[in-house]
Amino acid sequence: MSTDRLVVIGGDAAGMSAAAQARRLREAGDLEIVVLEQGPDVSYSACGIPYWVGGLVSDRDKLIARTPAQFAARDIEVRTGTRAEAVDLDAGTVTTSSGDRLGYDNLLVATGGRPLRPPVPGLDAPGVHGVHRLADGADIRAAVAAGAKRAVVLGGGYIGLEMADVLHARGLDVTVVLADPMPMSQLDVEMAERVCKAIGDMGIDMQTEQPVREIEVDADGVVAAVRTDAGRYPADLVVLGLGMGPEVTLAREAGLRLGETGAIEVDRTQRSRSHPEVFAAGDCSQTYSRITGEALHVALGTHANKQGRVAGAVIGGRAARFAGVLGTALTKVGDLEIARTGLCTTQAEKAGYEYRSEIIEGTTRAGYYPGAEPMTVKLLSDRGSGLLLGAQVVGGPGSGKRIDVLATAIWAGMTAEEFAGSDLSYAPPFSPTYDPVIVAARVASRVEQG
Amino acid sequence: MSTDRLVVIGGDAAGMSAAAQARRLREAGDLEIVVLEQGPDVSYSACGIPYWVGGLVSDRDKLIARTPAQFAARDIEVRTGTRAEAVDLDAGTVTTSSGDRLGYDNLLVATGGRPLRPPVPGLDAPGVHGVHRLADGADIRAAVAAGAKRAVVLGGGYIGLEMADVLHARGLDVTVVLADPMPMSQLDVEMAERVCKAIGDMGIDMQTEQPVREIEVDADGVVAAVRTDAGRYPADLVVLGLGMGPEVTLAREAGLRLGETGAIEVDRTQRSRSHPEVFAAGDCSQTYSRITGEALHVALGTHANKQGRVAGAVIGGRAARFAGVLGTALTKVGDLEIARTGLCTTQAEKAGYEYRSEIIEGTTRAGYYPGAEPMTVKLLSDRGSGLLLGAQVVGGPGSGKRIDVLATAIWAGMTAEEFAGSDLSYAPPFSPTYDPVIVAARVASRVEQG
Repeated sequence: MSTDRLVVIGGDAAGMSAAAQARRLREAGDLEIVVLEQGPDVSYSACGIPYWVGGLVSDRDKLIARTPAQFAARDIEVRTGTRAEAVDLDAGTVTTSSGDRLGYDNLLVATGGRPLRPPVPGLDAPGVHGVHRLADGADIRAAVAAGAKRAVVLGGGYIGLEMADVLHARGLDVTVVLADPMPMSQLDVEMAERVCKAIGDMGIDMQTEQPVREIEVDADGVVAAVRTDAGRYPADLVVLGLGMGPEVTLAREAGLRLGETGAIEVDRTQRSRSHPEVFAAGDCSQTYSRITGEALHVALGTHANKQGRVAGAVIGGRAARFAGVLGTALTKVGDLEIARTGLCTTQAEKAGYEYRSEIIEGTTRAGYYPGAEPMTVKLLSDRGSGLLLGAQVVGGPGSGKRIDVLATAIWAGMTAEEFAGSDLSYAPPFSPTYDPVIVAARVASRVEQG
Repeated sequence: MSTDRLVVIGGDAAGMSAAAQARRLREAGDLEIVVLEQGPDVSYSACGIPYWVGGLVSDRDKLIARTPAQFAARDIEVRTGTRAEAVDLDAGTVTTSSGDRLGYDNLLVATGGRPLRPPVPGLDAPGVHGVHRLADGADIRAAVAAGAKRAVVLGGGYIGLEMADVLHARGLDVTVVLADPMPMSQLDVEMAERVCKAIGDMGIDMQTEQPVREIEVDADGVVAAVRTDAGRYPADLVVLGLGMGPEVTLAREAGLRLGETGAIEVDRTQRSRSHPEVFAAGDCSQTYSRITGEALHVALGTHANKQGRVAGAVIGGRAARFAGVLGTALTKVGDLEIARTGLCTTQAEKAGYEYRSEIIEGTTRAGYYPGAEPMTVKLLSDRGSGLLLGAQVVGGPGSGKRIDVLATAIWAGMTAEEFAGSDLSYAPPFSPTYDPVIVAARVASRVEQG
């Protein structure tokens, strides 16, 4: 029996999960696995970069889950510093930056995402940073260490606000500039307002409804300020927090089919819709909403891990299927925890739901227990069926992770009424007698309306 | 139209929830509501007593959610200091300690629970305290203020360990004496061992497998020590932490049917199985397992609240149904959080399941994030169907409330595999990329075993 070869392009969450899963199912004599990674590292946590910049994580290496040597010990060959330059889908080969031409039986494209960039002058100037690779984190740390005093964050998404938070905590003057009226576009306005106010109260300057027009540079060509129609914000440091798009240059050039989101179109097994021997997973691939079935692009490590596992299992010969996303997300800014799952109002409207929306105010612990903090829960449910559609939580310590309870209820296809009856834990240090998520469901349940 | 009368016996969680819900649905001209409460307070949080004793809650009144005056403003008449002495089920009357004989159209028995007491000499001595009514809390606080140095807690359930924790934190020497080999009988042995070790490490003395034989008293008849076959434990203060049984003296004497658990037998609407005009709710009533359908007695404020609401709704003319319990419970001892839901091993065996059991070790946050603490998840699932049956969590801050995610998955009837695919939140300050609960489900899922 001849040995098959799996070539994996991209050695982070999706690529390495796939490689590891395929290896669990097929031995080295049956399947050779080669991973091409253009950077120096594999399996690193991009999500940890803000905390490394913030000094909460002391050591770059802590952000690396596994090294190439650890994969080598499992018969997974990792070639770091090696770019995949071209894929010939007809011939089944990948040409690498080191001049090799690798044949494959299966190919996994896991090229990840790339920070979205506004189309303005100056964006390539030194001092403008993504938050994507560990090198970005190192650059920002170096800039802070070198005395940067003023930072401008472009965009008010999760990474943007996390970076604003940690840079502010490190003593920089921080301005967040965004085109939208509110940060966190995946939150409804009344929830985003709470976030916006909390950020302002921390002393971070929020400049909303101001698309960036130019990154001004100084005489040396180094970033000096961010200019919008309404103002000019001096900056020693500019951080791109506009979100991530799919990195599909290689896939597009090769002729892999892209979907409506611009990411690589795959079926539920992460298999390319145009080339069945090719798989794609992680931030470069298109995924779908668990609720509406709609095509989505969501760049997040958890999905990348799971999609990689699915691709690896299928390549390994075992049935597997990616079950979709709810768009669950969680972060914190200062002590404020911010979380969401499922559909927000705009998404529910777009999907044609006639929905009910409830906002309730509760506390994280029994009101009399020390450290009880306010938390707000917003819940969307379908007016016809009562099915839960989406939820958002903003509040003090302990509130954010409650989104998982709501995500599980939505995942399971529960109605507000079913969920309202569920047996959640209660103890004064952890929640009021009725947890705020249950109160929200009870208010939303149709029984309550009768 | 004549006015009906609802008499409620017992003014805590179940009774007052029922009264409030019935009032929402029927106006005072249609339904008179009279609540008889033998103590001085209604709507108090017995669960908060340990924290009041521990000094975390400064003020007794903070444990009272609503006063009789607040209920009066909603046309609910509360008679505190008034015992229901007898119920005549044929005549439909209640005789009170103030000599009244109140007729009722509907009766709600919400007499609550009573601390279980070992049948040993000395248990009525001054210095032996339940943790049941606010007066118990006041007595224990007074004993501590008067200089009590040594406390013995009888029993290792939730309340027992909470009391041991807070008394230890207040500087007393604390010994926990229990008949079982391990505390927390609702946890499996390997999880309870973790709890036992943590408690020992805190400096609390655990004496296991020692049924108490006698409460020794001094010359004044005041508690002096707890004696078992293996030892004698001096005590200025003895706390009953053996759990709660149903308080059904009145119901039994009246002739209401009791169930196999000794609590009042009710249908899904909290209606007495023997007398349809009578309802029972809360710690005095029998309930049932959501999973097995089996009759249970579970004394917990959340269920009491919900059952009271159901009874109140039905009395108010609206369909409602109590959907069962999983036995979800949560507490903390020091910084160790302890939670469980669904069936533990013994319960699964008793119910005839052929189950799979997995224990995984994880962390509360990304391993590299400050404050990441170990957490252990045990998951039971049905070997045939993959359905989740039960879960237990023991770990550092942030681990305990995760039981709600597992409780929701069990409540919804999810399999381990379905739950393993679900879209839970991820951010380094809150969880590893795969939350430990998901790791446990993945390991348990049949796919993983293939």
